[in-house]
Amino acid sequence: MPQLDDFLAEHKDRFESDLFDLLAIPSISADSDYKSDLLRAGQWVAEKFRRIGLSVEMVETAGHPIVYAESPPVEGAPTVLVYGHYDVQPPDPLDEWISPPFEPTCRDGNVYARGATDDKGQMLTHVLSAEAWMETAESLPLQIKYVIEGEEEVGSEHLAPFIAENKEKLACDVVVISDTSQFAPGQPAITYGLKGIAYFELRVQGPRQDLHSGTFGGAVSNPCNGLAHILSSLVDEEGRVQIPGFYDDVLPLDSRERRQFAGLPFDERGFMEQIGVEAVHGEAGYSTLERRWARPTYDVNGIWGGYQGEGEKTVLPAKAGAKFSFRLVPDQDPKKIAEALREHLTAVCPPGLELELEERHGAPGFVVSLDSPFMSAAALAIEQGFGRSPVFIREGGSIPIVTCMSEHLGADVLLLGWGLDDDNTHSPNEKFSLTDFHRGIKSSAHLWRELSRIGAS
Amino acid sequence: MPQLDDFLAEHKDRFESDLFDLLAIPSISADSDYKSDLLRAGQWVAEKFRRIGLSVEMVETAGHPIVYAESPPVEGAPTVLVYGHYDVQPPDPLDEWISPPFEPTCRDGNVYARGATDDKGQMLTHVLSAEAWMETAESLPLQIKYVIEGEEEVGSEHLAPFIAENKEKLACDVVVISDTSQFAPGQPAITYGLKGIAYFELRVQGPRQDLHSGTFGGAVSNPCNGLAHILSSLVDEEGRVQIPGFYDDVLPLDSRERRQFAGLPFDERGFMEQIGVEAVHGEAGYSTLERRWARPTYDVNGIWGGYQGEGEKTVLPAKAGAKFSFRLVPDQDPKKIAEALREHLTAVCPPGLELELEERHGAPGFVVSLDSPFMSAAALAIEQGFGRSPVFIREGGSIPIVTCMSEHLGADVLLLGWGLDDDNTHSPNEKFSLTDFHRGIKSSAHLWRELSRIGAS
Repeated sequence: MPQLDDFLAEHKDRFESDLFDLLAIPSISADSDYKSDLLRAGQWVAEKFRRIGLSVEMVETAGHPIVYAESPPVEGAPTVLVYGHYDVQPPDPLDEWISPPFEPTCRDGNVYARGATDDKGQMLTHVLSAEAWMETAESLPLQIKYVIEGEEEVGSEHLAPFIAENKEKLACDVVVISDTSQFAPGQPAITYGLKGIAYFELRVQGPRQDLHSGTFGGAVSNPCNGLAHILSSLVDEEGRVQIPGFYDDVLPLDSRERRQFAGLPFDERGFMEQIGVEAVHGEAGYSTLERRWARPTYDVNGIWGGYQGEGEKTVLPAKAGAKFSFRLVPDQDPKKIAEALREHLTAVCPPGLELELEERHGAPGFVVSLDSPFMSAAALAIEQGFGRSPVFIREGGSIPIVTCMSEHLGADVLLLGWGLDDDNTHSPNEKFSLTDFHRGIKSSAHLWRELSRIGAS
Repeated sequence: MPQLDDFLAEHKDRFESDLFDLLAIPSISADSDYKSDLLRAGQWVAEKFRRIGLSVEMVETAGHPIVYAESPPVEGAPTVLVYGHYDVQPPDPLDEWISPPFEPTCRDGNVYARGATDDKGQMLTHVLSAEAWMETAESLPLQIKYVIEGEEEVGSEHLAPFIAENKEKLACDVVVISDTSQFAPGQPAITYGLKGIAYFELRVQGPRQDLHSGTFGGAVSNPCNGLAHILSSLVDEEGRVQIPGFYDDVLPLDSRERRQFAGLPFDERGFMEQIGVEAVHGEAGYSTLERRWARPTYDVNGIWGGYQGEGEKTVLPAKAGAKFSFRLVPDQDPKKIAEALREHLTAVCPPGLELELEERHGAPGFVVSLDSPFMSAAALAIEQGFGRSPVFIREGGSIPIVTCMSEHLGADVLLLGWGLDDDNTHSPNEKFSLTDFHRGIKSSAHLWRELSRIGAS
């Protein structure tokens, strides 16, 4: 595609200028003071689609609008849905920014601004690649539907119902999202799996009120002692969750995946230094990357009870509590896990304590087959954009909207990350490499071609 | 002693009036606004001693003064030291008091006021009994030394050095303290054992800063998980502490004690209802009273870490911590326990976590032989005061000053409780039964006689 590649090379400055325009709008979805800026950012994106020649719709919601755009269907070619978001995280703490968060500034080949990588910069690559096609070929080689929302940073409250209610309109063969990272600088990655989650809050009630630990200690169960016992009973010393049936539905890592993970240039020593620990530790029999990406885990996220102040208080507390969560992998079912947890808790609860378990949030894990034709197409496109084949990785985090789209639209999802781990997403001095911005646009432009060759479903 | 008993019967009103005078002084040691009231209360006690005919000294300290008084030595009779305190707890919350805390008010045979039972009322019984002796016999049958301090409710900071520096002046055969409770209304008790304590704060450090539990969970030790594991490892499900050597120096309950405890009219169902639990639970093989009074115990007093707010935060916290304590029994040594604990912690600490253990407070337990002649003398005296033999009990709490006196003066300690468990010590509406006040004075008056028969050491 020499013509397309030439166009991309010639228009780099203009693409950057588009990016800077959008980054200059403080579209902070968490702060209602910025409501008009959200609208402005949404309109900017909509106007961009209009100029490219796509049909555009501003979908009003009770929150910020969803920008929907689409190109015409192309017979014999699949339909792709691009998801992204135009809202950004709050920039606080402001005094830690070297240049102001909404005055995009270039330093060392990066643009610094809130939203640079998350997600304005990454999202725009898929818009500008469409522009390149329209300008050079006057049409796209396949139908693209764009869903660009303004509430990703505040929980996508209105996007899920929009998707559920518009399954036909949004029907597609594959969803493309660029809101993740490369494996390392210059080493692009396709994220083909995400973990799910089952998040709980447990409250333990003992005596009616705080008691003197001298007068009553040792005679009745102490909720803090009990909580420690219960939380500790959920896992053994080798990192294996002890809830009966917990691993029943776990899709095991296959040998190809294990080989791939093992072949990645993962620097475990550097990882330890980065987070400041003397040792890694996790489920026996698995590597650090396997534990992070593809094995279910158990973390206490918060714990409280009794006296937390200075000095000593000889109290036998009336209550204690904890928040804890399991990161799930396919095909674990959060509801089934919650039921098994309830049974386990009943079995291990010390006499005289009452437990209250609240199921806070549950989502299944997600994995795309490495054999999917979309995966191969994306790999080819990325190789053309980055000059290097992508590696196939998974992530320990959850992206609820991915699960939602995968479930409602029945489509595969391609997570194509142009960002870097140290891009300061959600922190001061967020950045995005301009080289990677252009590589992303080129990869995207080639992706439309590669995907179009697959044929319609 | 008909003359003495008659005197006590005739002067009941005046004794009560003395008590009310002292209770009206707001000697709140925790609040520096009341410094002059502390002085006033100390002077009131000193003046009382002077009127009785004892030699008196106001011992200045960097805090509130200690009132020291003594009667002349009596050849062939032992010397007794009476300890008590004239300071009181703060009365907050004030709006829960039915009558104002420093306006002593009689209702249902009780006087309601802050300090009524803790310790002005109980302490005065031993002063008024001496007055009765002086008025009826013109002398006491044995030498009494009084140490009445004004800082008990704030930790007795200046009393310990006073005792350590005045061992000869304070030399005695037995110490008498009334700052505890009867076993039940009308069933007096001699407390012959107290527990000691070893109080710790443990801080657990994991990664340098809070991490995303999705990206990092399962790959590094989580300080909250680790803390639960460590705290849980300290005890088994049957309530037995798991630190190697923990029970090595425990003085076992002998069969006489176990029979006595078992014979007490302890209402376990009522105990459970009182504190609001469905079941008692503790060290296997021991009764509730044995666990509370004479077996070492382990309680987590406070626990913290990670996110304690509303909703969910998917954090792998950087740190966590807990305060926990062991109640010790004779002859456990808090220092030895701390050393064994350190070794245990090192053995069970999960990889990648750093532990910081702070030894906050340690004191050994305390027990007086039931065969001591002072014990028999006190039992006889109490039988005369209350019309009923006392039962012999122990307590799960610690009274640091008891340990201090026992160690420095090498004397036995008699804890003769005239109060009741529901006297609201440290709570609003503190009270003291006036019947028990007079029974206490009479028991005390007879105690001087019974002790004088033992002979000097």
